[in-house]
Amino acid sequence: MRLLLINGPNLNNIGIREPEIYGNIGFSDYFDNLKQEFSGHSLDYFHSHSESAIAGKLHESQSDFDGVVLNAGAYSHTSVLLRDAVAAVSVPVVMVHISNVYSREKFRNQNIIAPVCKGIITGFGVDSYRLAILSLIR
Amino acid sequence: MRLLLINGPNLNNIGIREPEIYGNIGFSDYFDNLKQEFSGHSLDYFHSHSESAIAGKLHESQSDFDGVVLNAGAYSHTSVLLRDAVAAVSVPVVMVHISNVYSREKFRNQNIIAPVCKGIITGFGVDSYRLAILSLIR
Amino acid sequence: MRLLLINGPNLNNIGIREPEIYGNIGFSDYFDNLKQEFSGHSLDYFHSHSESAIAGKLHESQSDFDGVVLNAGAYSHTSVLLRDAVAAVSVPVVMVHISNVYSREKFRNQNIIAPVCKGIITGFGVDSYRLAILSLIR
Amino acid sequence: MRLLLINGPNLNNIGIREPEIYGNIGFSDYFDNLKQEFSGHSLDYFHSHSESAIAGKLHESQSDFDGVVLNAGAYSHTSVLLRDAVAAVSVPVVMVHISNVYSREKFRNQNIIAPVCKGIITGFGVDSYRLAILSLIR
Amino acid sequence: MRLLLINGPNLNNIGIREPEIYGNIGFSDYFDNLKQEFSGHSLDYFHSHSESAIAGKLHESQSDFDGVVLNAGAYSHTSVLLRDAVAAVSVPVVMVHISNVYSREKFRNQNIIAPVCKGIITGFGVDSYRLAILSLIR
Amino acid sequence: MRLLLINGPNLNNIGIREPEIYGNIGFSDYFDNLKQEFSGHSLDYFHSHSESAIAGKLHESQSDFDGVVLNAGAYSHTSVLLRDAVAAVSVPVVMVHISNVYSREKFRNQNIIAPVCKGIITGFGVDSYRLAILSLIR
Amino acid sequence: MRLLLINGPNLNNIGIREPEIYGNIGFSDYFDNLKQEFSGHSLDYFHSHSESAIAGKLHESQSDFDGVVLNAGAYSHTSVLLRDAVAAVSVPVVMVHISNVYSREKFRNQNIIAPVCKGIITGFGVDSYRLAILSLIR
Amino acid sequence: MRLLLINGPNLNNIGIREPEIYGNIGFSDYFDNLKQEFSGHSLDYFHSHSESAIAGKLHESQSDFDGVVLNAGAYSHTSVLLRDAVAAVSVPVVMVHISNVYSREKFRNQNIIAPVCKGIITGFGVDSYRLAILSLIR
Amino acid sequence: MRLLLINGPNLNNIGIREPEIYGNIGFSDYFDNLKQEFSGHSLDYFHSHSESAIAGKLHESQSDFDGVVLNAGAYSHTSVLLRDAVAAVSVPVVMVHISNVYSREKFRNQNIIAPVCKGIITGFGVDSYRLAILSLIR
Amino acid sequence: MRLLLINGPNLNNIGIREPEIYGNIGFSDYFDNLKQEFSGHSLDYFHSHSESAIAGKLHESQSDFDGVVLNAGAYSHTSVLLRDAVAAVSVPVVMVHISNVYSREKFRNQNIIAPVCKGIITGFGVDSYRLAILSLIR
Amino acid sequence: MRLLLINGPNLNNIGIREPEIYGNIGFSDYFDNLKQEFSGHSLDYFHSHSESAIAGKLHESQSDFDGVVLNAGAYSHTSVLLRDAVAAVSVPVVMVHISNVYSREKFRNQNIIAPVCKGIITGFGVDSYRLAILSLIR
Amino acid sequence: MRLLLINGPNLNNIGIREPEIYGNIGFSDYFDNLKQEFSGHSLDYFHSHSESAIAGKLHESQSDFDGVVLNAGAYSHTSVLLRDAVAAVSVPVVMVHISNVYSREKFRNQNIIAPVCKGIITGFGVDSYRLAILSLIR
Repeated sequence: MRLLLINGPNLNNIGIREPEIYGNIGFSDYFDNLKQEFSGHSLDYFHSHSESAIAGKLHESQSDFDGVVLNAGAYSHTSVLLRDAVAAVSVPVVMVHISNVYSREKFRNQNIIAPVCKGIITGFGVDSYRLAILSLIR
Repeated sequence: MRLLLINGPNLNNIGIREPEIYGNIGFSDYFDNLKQEFSGHSLDYFHSHSESAIAGKLHESQSDFDGVVLNAGAYSHTSVLLRDAVAAVSVPVVMVHISNVYSREKFRNQNIIAPVCKGIITGFGVDSYRLAILSLIR
Repeated sequence: MRLLLINGPNLNNIGIREPEIYGNIGFSDYFDNLKQEFSGHSLDYFHSHSESAIAGKLHESQSDFDGVVLNAGAYSHTSVLLRDAVAAVSVPVVMVHISNVYSREKFRNQNIIAPVCKGIITGFGVDSYRLAILSLIR
Repeated sequence: MRLLLINGPNLNNIGIREPEIYGNIGFSDYFDNLKQEFSGHSLDYFHSHSESAIAGKLHESQSDFDGVVLNAGAYSHTSVLLRDAVAAVSVPVVMVHISNVYSREKFRNQNIIAPVCKGIITGFGVDSYRLAILSLIR
Repeated sequence: MRLLLINGPNLNNIGIREPEIYGNIGFSDYFDNLKQEFSGHSLDYFHSHSESAIAGKLHESQSDFDGVVLNAGAYSHTSVLLRDAVAAVSVPVVMVHISNVYSREKFRNQNIIAPVCKGIITGFGVDSYRLAILSLIR
Repeated sequence: MRLLLINGPNLNNIGIREPEIYGNIGFSDYFDNLKQEFSGHSLDYFHSHSESAIAGKLHESQSDFDGVVLNAGAYSHTSVLLRDAVAAVSVPVVMVHISNVYSREKFRNQNIIAPVCKGIITGFGVDSYRLAILSLIR
Repeated sequence: MRLLLINGPNLNNIGIREPEIYGNIGFSDYFDNLKQEFSGHSLDYFHSHSESAIAGKLHESQSDFDGVVLNAGAYSHTSVLLRDAVAAVSVPVVMVHISNVYSREKFRNQNIIAPVCKGIITGFGVDSYRLAILSLIR
Repeated sequence: MRLLLINGPNLNNIGIREPEIYGNIGFSDYFDNLKQEFSGHSLDYFHSHSESAIAGKLHESQSDFDGVVLNAGAYSHTSVLLRDAVAAVSVPVVMVHISNVYSREKFRNQNIIAPVCKGIITGFGVDSYRLAILSLIR
Repeated sequence: MRLLLINGPNLNNIGIREPEIYGNIGFSDYFDNLKQEFSGHSLDYFHSHSESAIAGKLHESQSDFDGVVLNAGAYSHTSVLLRDAVAAVSVPVVMVHISNVYSREKFRNQNIIAPVCKGIITGFGVDSYRLAILSLIR
Repeated sequence: MRLLLINGPNLNNIGIREPEIYGNIGFSDYFDNLKQEFSGHSLDYFHSHSESAIAGKLHESQSDFDGVVLNAGAYSHTSVLLRDAVAAVSVPVVMVHISNVYSREKFRNQNIIAPVCKGIITGFGVDSYRLAILSLIR
Repeated sequence: MRLLLINGPNLNNIGIREPEIYGNIGFSDYFDNLKQEFSGHSLDYFHSHSESAIAGKLHESQSDFDGVVLNAGAYSHTSVLLRDAVAAVSVPVVMVHISNVYSREKFRNQNIIAPVCKGIITGFGVDSYRLAILSLIR
Repeated sequence: MRLLLINGPNLNNIGIREPEIYGNIGFSDYFDNLKQEFSGHSLDYFHSHSESAIAGKLHESQSDFDGVVLNAGAYSHTSVLLRDAVAAVSVPVVMVHISNVYSREKFRNQNIIAPVCKGIITGFGVDSYRLAILSLIR
């Protein structure tokens, strides 16, 4: 299975900022581990702060991938654009949140993109990515 | 690992009502499959329509289990009691939703119990249970 | 026709508390009168303060009854659980309110169960039960 | 008993638009059937799209009728005027809705006139009228 | 005076969970102390996680007690049922909160049962029970 | 113990306006009774309609008193100033309401000062003052 | 001065329904008294239940009158149409309410037409009309 | 094509009140120009302040016209009745607003009728009518 | 009749700040004119920026006056205290607003004191005072 | 006239995704048809998923174009930035929506950019573009 | 330049309560430092807990000062009165907040006085005063 | 001190569009003046319409700058992304608004980024930038 993992805004330096969560390895090392664990599948990675760049990537993903793991970060709570993009593409999209967004500020309780996703995984730290992949390759 | 799977109200006859999702096997057969897949762990099952019975079970679970998978059904959206129960016990609780609650009625967007759970898995059909177990035995 | 009449919480002593409405007969006498009036049909009665017990009864009712008259009392305004239970069963459910809930506290204007009922009868005192039966045996 | 049945706005061509509900008979035929069923009582009919005409009819009804069956249609959700009119007259008014307004658009959940009615019957199709008459002639 | 003290959901193990508040004695020891302090009165105790069981106990309490001290826990914020039960019984009910609910989550600011209670005592730790008894035996 | 009892706006003539509650004695007589009942402690009294005068008194109270009983009257529902004043002083403040504010106008359900008080006593008539003193001298 | 007094819906039988307020004279007698009191001015009267008829009258009033006294009844709280009509005409319009609308149902607190009126007189019983006339002939 | 142009309340004297927008010609002259411009089609005109009259006209329009241009004026923001009428008829209805309602009072942002219209044209002055006709004769 | 006219906060320099409304005379001259016009009655004047001073004056007014004209200025929209004060005194209080508060900021639409006043006069400039006096001496 | 047509996010593949609406031609063919129909004018096209790129284009458009047709897609409901951009430029901007946004999700009822546009055309499918051009070249 | 610095309620003992912010000097010492730093200007100081006293001072300030620095404390969030006072005076008023009110309780996000101030400086500790003075003497 | 001044969307041509505020010099000239005034510090400038570009710049700024002055323009009211970016970086960020956002549209009262800024300066025209720099170099 060809899978794409998308990290949205402010998710560029996970593992540098929060070593107590990930041990001493950064996200790229973590991603390498995921690749090894799921070596029977192909895993690609895309990161952008930009709402429009992520939307563009989602449109492209239709022809190139069988599943998308999307951590939309702050856009989860505000972006009608990404909702429309997810709804427009035929590839299944699984949304992940690293933290438990329900126990944070009230505006993070609202999730605009979730209604059009295949499923949502929330609050398991970086392990959320692994669970999302497991849900797609089932 | 000793795990407890709790099904809340109106979740007694999954697999009978919706064969198109589970194939021709009912929930008890599905649960047997889970037991086989996770044969290195012990899996118990508890079902009740009753808010107080579930709360009581959660209180008991502290001494008997290492993790709880909770599908609180309708109580997810209304029960301050179960929120307090989950917060009171030390065992980690993972909440699951079979359907994508975000794409249903607006009152199902509110989740009162989620802020005190370890994590939340939403919308993967019965596979949500399997992912929740995977998250706990990690 | 086999009909089940369910009285929810705090509806156990109608007729004792409010003699000015029912004359000197209690609800059981009133229910006997209903049985006589509809002697060509079978009428059963179930009362519980418990949300889960009522939900359980609704699930059972599918095989045993052709129609249910439900006075959910306070649960009408709060219970997502009973809404889901009514939606899950195939037997038609008619909701009744003894008092005109619209002219009472604002939180009694909200009715969570009504959208999935066959019909709603509100404000005719105990005569609401009789009208509900009439609507079902039509 | 002298009864008046009032149909409000957009209720002029019931039975023409929705034959699957009423069979092949229109509302006037249905009304004739009601007259036969309740031949011991007098039944009058009034239809208007106009809020003020209905209010005027309600004011007149006091001297001429013993009970009113009111299907206020869209005015149920917006008309303070008709609420005041129902409250001003001494004749009992029973409100009916043909459809289950609770399961439709959110603005149809609000009912401004209901608090001052004798009772409300909702969702039984045209049979709502018959039940309303039954409630009045009791 | 015959008094009944009711503890609602998640209030079963006070004194075990929070020793810093109660010293080394559990709630049963605390209750024994209350009994000694108010030895001229009879004190009974009832605990349940169940909304309906508490409602049932309130209905029974009318004939057996002269006053009720009710800590409804989470139900304080959600239960129309218990509000109706308290309103239905003639025995005076004093509501207590151990913690200052006003300084916690916003949904704990809402108190549905309070409007029909004799009085409310909030935030004095377990001493709230003692003050409630003092208010009743006055 | 040195205690200060503060009565806020419109609380100047309790006992004159509502004899059916206090018998034929006015508040000053009632206060004399309190002094006798708690003769082992010193009780002072301060009354003002003025938000700023009460705030000033609270600031002064820190050095002169061991506890404050505050009936803030209408300011309970509107005064951020008094909330800040209570939060700023180190002396414990117990808030009292004579009437059950929950059963009155909706704007009296909001309590801005309560979150920073030691405790709140509501609805016991003038006996609320006595209970508040009892809670402080414990 | 040529003045027009408009009574809106449900205001047709003032004086008949509420003799305790107006003594034994009906509105027409009251209006005759007004005419006498302001005999130096011409007073016309218009009553309608109909929003559109009142709007039409307001449009006409421009050429025929120097001031309008408008009791819009229930329309005060709902009618954007009458607001637009009052805003469209150049003749000054004074709004009156017989009762104190602020102390009634919450939906009567909203006044859609008031922002475009010359002034508003509320709560003086029928004397509101006299004060409105006094404000116009100043 | 047979087209009907409906002007709702307070739209009777466009062109007289606002010459700076329409030049020196009134609406009837403007309408004559429209007739000339679309001489291959038949154009009828209907104006009423009355909600019910417009509803009645919409019901009739089904048999007589192929399209309706509706400027509902103030009713756009309040009328459930006209929404139901537009939804009930099979003829396509295009809604127009002369002014940009979005930049006016907040209550003009709400449009109750729009969801059931074929399309909406807003803010082009009287040219809105011409564009609506162009959209229908396409 | 002994009347008291109270001007609340920021109403100290009417007539100085807005000469285009009052001509060249200040409020004291205007008040002198009122005294002359109503020479058969006694008129007193009280001005304060202070909520508590106005409340105190209202309490005193009971024994000294037969009616109060209250322009509470900004307090009209915020003061529960003054509402309680007006409700507590037996003397009739007529509220006046110089400007049309409905056409100003949204927070000036809320009027907390009005529900307990005898009547409210809004928007007639300083003439509002004269109309209020006329309503009281009737 | 020099016109610019801007398509915002997720509007890149109209005509491919929804052939039942546009026939078998894609948007570029449709745009070619528009160019032919309005051959006396120059038409340019700009598409971007990016809020900032569209804002930049709007700033540039001032010197190069006489009118802009803007389909802002999802940004219509969320973008204060584009509102400010449209307000900042002197060139007239006409907003278009292909679908009837009023009949879709509630969050699409809010339109942040519309108040500063020349006009809005909603719900005519791709014909909305043609009508917008017609409105500009008038 | 003659400047007035006003400290509102609960701001009397800054520097005593929070030494970690201001070092070991109290507000009066801090104010002396400001006077030295801005020795070319005159600086006056006024402190009051009282809303009306501050309003009175603002009215007086017109003739005596060229600028006002206002820390309204809790009144910032509640006082329509001070808003009206600031709007009424011609002297420029700069509002300051010592703390970042945006990161505190939600009710501190509302600022009623700010819309009529010259500018607002928020969150710089006591340095906010110095920045406010710098903005005025520019 | 190394300082970075960031101008967000639609802030590219300040000084060209509004000469009455800045005199005849554009923003670049103004920025040159700032550089001269603060010649002991280094000042850099970054402008972008793009939310993601600004976020990227903020992430970079950590290593290169000692303080950031951020005018986020429209993003102040909508961008959770920029809030998260400001919270993620260790460099202090001072937010500025040129205009008094409190006195403009209601949606500009909401400030999503402010809670995580060091301080906020609002409404002093371009002088806001100078004050922000003064606050940072203190």
